[in-house]
Amino acid sequence: MNGAECLLRTLLQCGVDTCFMNPGTSEMQFVAALDRVEGMRSVLCLFEGVCSGAADGYARMLRRPAATLLHLGPGLGNALANLHNARKARSPVVNIVGQHTTQHLRYDAPLTADIEAFARPVSGWIRTLQRPEDMGVEAAAVVRAACEPPGQVATLIVPADHSWSESGEPASGEPAAVSQPISRRSPRSECVLGAASIMKSGECTGLLLGGAALLEPGLRAAGQLAASTGVRVFADRNGARMERGQGTFAPQRVPYFPEPAEAALAGLKHLILVESLPPVSFFGYPGRRSTLAPEDCAVHVLAAIDENGTVALQELVHEFGASSVSVPAQEMARPKLPRGAALTLENIGLGLAEGMPEGSIVSDEMISAAEAILQNLAAARPFTHLPITGGSIGQGLPVALGAAVACPDRKVIALQADGSAMYTLQSLWTMAREGLNIVVVILANRRYRILEIESRRTGAGEIGPRANDMMDLGRPNLDWVKLAEGQGVSACRATSSDEFIALFHAAVSQTGPRLIEAVLE
Amino acid sequence: MNGAECLLRTLLQCGVDTCFMNPGTSEMQFVAALDRVEGMRSVLCLFEGVCSGAADGYARMLRRPAATLLHLGPGLGNALANLHNARKARSPVVNIVGQHTTQHLRYDAPLTADIEAFARPVSGWIRTLQRPEDMGVEAAAVVRAACEPPGQVATLIVPADHSWSESGEPASGEPAAVSQPISRRSPRSECVLGAASIMKSGECTGLLLGGAALLEPGLRAAGQLAASTGVRVFADRNGARMERGQGTFAPQRVPYFPEPAEAALAGLKHLILVESLPPVSFFGYPGRRSTLAPEDCAVHVLAAIDENGTVALQELVHEFGASSVSVPAQEMARPKLPRGAALTLENIGLGLAEGMPEGSIVSDEMISAAEAILQNLAAARPFTHLPITGGSIGQGLPVALGAAVACPDRKVIALQADGSAMYTLQSLWTMAREGLNIVVVILANRRYRILEIESRRTGAGEIGPRANDMMDLGRPNLDWVKLAEGQGVSACRATSSDEFIALFHAAVSQTGPRLIEAVLE
Repeated sequence: MNGAECLLRTLLQCGVDTCFMNPGTSEMQFVAALDRVEGMRSVLCLFEGVCSGAADGYARMLRRPAATLLHLGPGLGNALANLHNARKARSPVVNIVGQHTTQHLRYDAPLTADIEAFARPVSGWIRTLQRPEDMGVEAAAVVRAACEPPGQVATLIVPADHSWSESGEPASGEPAAVSQPISRRSPRSECVLGAASIMKSGECTGLLLGGAALLEPGLRAAGQLAASTGVRVFADRNGARMERGQGTFAPQRVPYFPEPAEAALAGLKHLILVESLPPVSFFGYPGRRSTLAPEDCAVHVLAAIDENGTVALQELVHEFGASSVSVPAQEMARPKLPRGAALTLENIGLGLAEGMPEGSIVSDEMISAAEAILQNLAAARPFTHLPITGGSIGQGLPVALGAAVACPDRKVIALQADGSAMYTLQSLWTMAREGLNIVVVILANRRYRILEIESRRTGAGEIGPRANDMMDLGRPNLDWVKLAEGQGVSACRATSSDEFIALFHAAVSQTGPRLIEAVLE
Repeated sequence: MNGAECLLRTLLQCGVDTCFMNPGTSEMQFVAALDRVEGMRSVLCLFEGVCSGAADGYARMLRRPAATLLHLGPGLGNALANLHNARKARSPVVNIVGQHTTQHLRYDAPLTADIEAFARPVSGWIRTLQRPEDMGVEAAAVVRAACEPPGQVATLIVPADHSWSESGEPASGEPAAVSQPISRRSPRSECVLGAASIMKSGECTGLLLGGAALLEPGLRAAGQLAASTGVRVFADRNGARMERGQGTFAPQRVPYFPEPAEAALAGLKHLILVESLPPVSFFGYPGRRSTLAPEDCAVHVLAAIDENGTVALQELVHEFGASSVSVPAQEMARPKLPRGAALTLENIGLGLAEGMPEGSIVSDEMISAAEAILQNLAAARPFTHLPITGGSIGQGLPVALGAAVACPDRKVIALQADGSAMYTLQSLWTMAREGLNIVVVILANRRYRILEIESRRTGAGEIGPRANDMMDLGRPNLDWVKLAEGQGVSACRATSSDEFIALFHAAVSQTGPRLIEAVLE
């Protein structure tokens, strides 16, 4: 068999059965092999940043990698921003990037570029296939690399001639468990005992949960510890995924801006990290330090980011004899929905909390609208929250797409600011083609609103008319109904709270993608 | 004054008076300075690839740099594909990329990334500002670097705290001529004499023109040489810009596929390079070499890519006493327009040739449709052709945008394949906001048609149903009228030749952007 077929068979044998692709000439042999080998779900995206963001969303839900198939250096270039986000999410991603033929590379053809250099800023593992006979071994290696705990972006560069040449045999994954979620390393007993002793000291102590500790078992254990020991529990706001809603223990997410973040962490003498890093502010500002914990707070590690924080928390629960303590879960009543009201963020939040079906997956790229809406979602039925991880906007729609491919039986809700939606709006076409169960809510404030706030924080002073123009998306207004319909997605516009509630209700009760433009002006 | 204001003043003093921007928090001080300092045209783009492609289009027309303003590593990441194209076009581009504060960089904040690594694959010059007092010097240095002949991508990374700190004085450009087109080095007399001696040898000789030799003076000189000496003249098909249409000498562009390219160059014993590189095929294919000139053809240099090929050609004209030879220019009659005909590429070409006003600028990202249309444009009024340079698709619309900003008195025609238009469709919004005189023609074949052809060439065999699905843009169809209107651009659809001709005629007679979707199915 040729190299491309060997590559495809090896990916499948290693448990990678989904590929988000935007191929070109150098990848045509791989595309042709799709018709000879069963089992790979190939999802065409019309821009590479959609592929990489979708692979991130897929990995966050299944905790195992999808592949991307990208065309040469510039194709990988277009994928980088969402690969950056995937890197910060610690999502396993397998990039397959075509390269010119080995003979052709010595010439300065138009598309000749240093692909490894393109891959470097986001990849934990990069290799260029040197010989066609190594295809199986290297394809297994890139999957294994992506699955190194806690998960990383791994990039295999494949010269076109190695795809059409005779290759060696496909390799199989070892361990055989590659189609399972990544298993993290066991926690260290000295860390568990150390944390227990701090929590028994009587000094004000916090746990900061990140990574997979924000899934249901980790939250449950942390809730039992909070109830039984009084430890304060915080969540990394940029963790890849967190279970939320009614019945779930709700640690406090570390706030975005440093002042409220410092206030939230005030008084702590000890902060114990659970698959998280010491909290720092999103940006640096004049006259403020970057770290958020009190200066006299000692920072400890219960579980490093590649270790199993959930098991560590469960061992602590055992240590404190708290296994039968009931979890202090949210049981907020959902307020009555407003009628005849304006379309405010609060009312959108109330409508979402009422309408979101149990088990919804929320891809959150709400930016300036996030806090006002999320506080209302505490009363929603249990849902999975996929927040911003790396801060590069254009993540929300592709992550929703990937999550919907990963979890076809769940409803995906993309809560999406309008400015950031524009970076990867091509996602809508793939949602339509694949008939995915996604409701996109565009929060159309027609501004880069966050920049108004950030501008003042950097000391840039009052916003003059020219600066204002660089934050204004309202000249001309974007029409999201047309942008969605232009890509085959049914869409409608809400300008009042009643309209929004009715449209959202209708959207979640249907299958296939729907877009609602919520006009906030 | 603070660093941001110093940066802005220095750019202006160095002749950089246009900035295509997509700023974030780290760049807010620069944005605020726009209201304190006169003279910078700031153009907001809703995706960074639009900024970089626009800077390329601007530089191809004015042969001096615009700036981009980009947000951190991932923002630069989104700009890379079109910076790759700019690099291959040898366009001068000044990238200003914000960075976290120097204090903040040691922490792993969400947006922390190695910005220099992001810049490396496309930049000829990269520097991170180390001290605020060096802002003026470094800002002048990045402009000077971009203007190094023949022109390159230069990237200055500016930590946010250096933007708000007190800086040194703004620097002025040296030489003062930075607002002029880049001047190339003088040709070497031994190269001119060597070329003359080859052309006198009686052996079959060709000139291959690239770079600025494809502008009117270079073409004129090459035409005089062709007429007086019989030398064959070819054009680099990926040169940044070429003057075309009636009254212009028309060298043969080296064909895209290797077979016709080899046929075009067959018989040559000498190929003389004029601001060009030895011709190679776009991709490598099984069983074919990459180079295109005959194997026994000797390759010589008249002017290297950083030398003035036009002067070299003019010196040859003088050497051959051909100054008064009349140029063998195209004077093709325009065929009568078809009536009642189907919407074929040929008929679109005829309609364009008839309707394009003199001095139009054609941004060409037609891909598989290019040859059929371009052959009809030989009969158009004189126009400037901006072709694909680096082969990364998503170039056409941003280049059109940048060319229109550079040349407000000329009509810009973007001839654009549908698949590649999707990569940077956000360009349409900026065209609307700036009221630019651009007519976008979307050639909607609803396929990645070129991949069908390329797939067969790589030996991938018949295209099965799954492979076919990865080249098919017709499920669902893109509606370009809605995609344009959704961004504030008036749009219409043509399904017959008569409709296209009438709509194109109307579009070019109006000001502001218009889009025509030409449905080719």
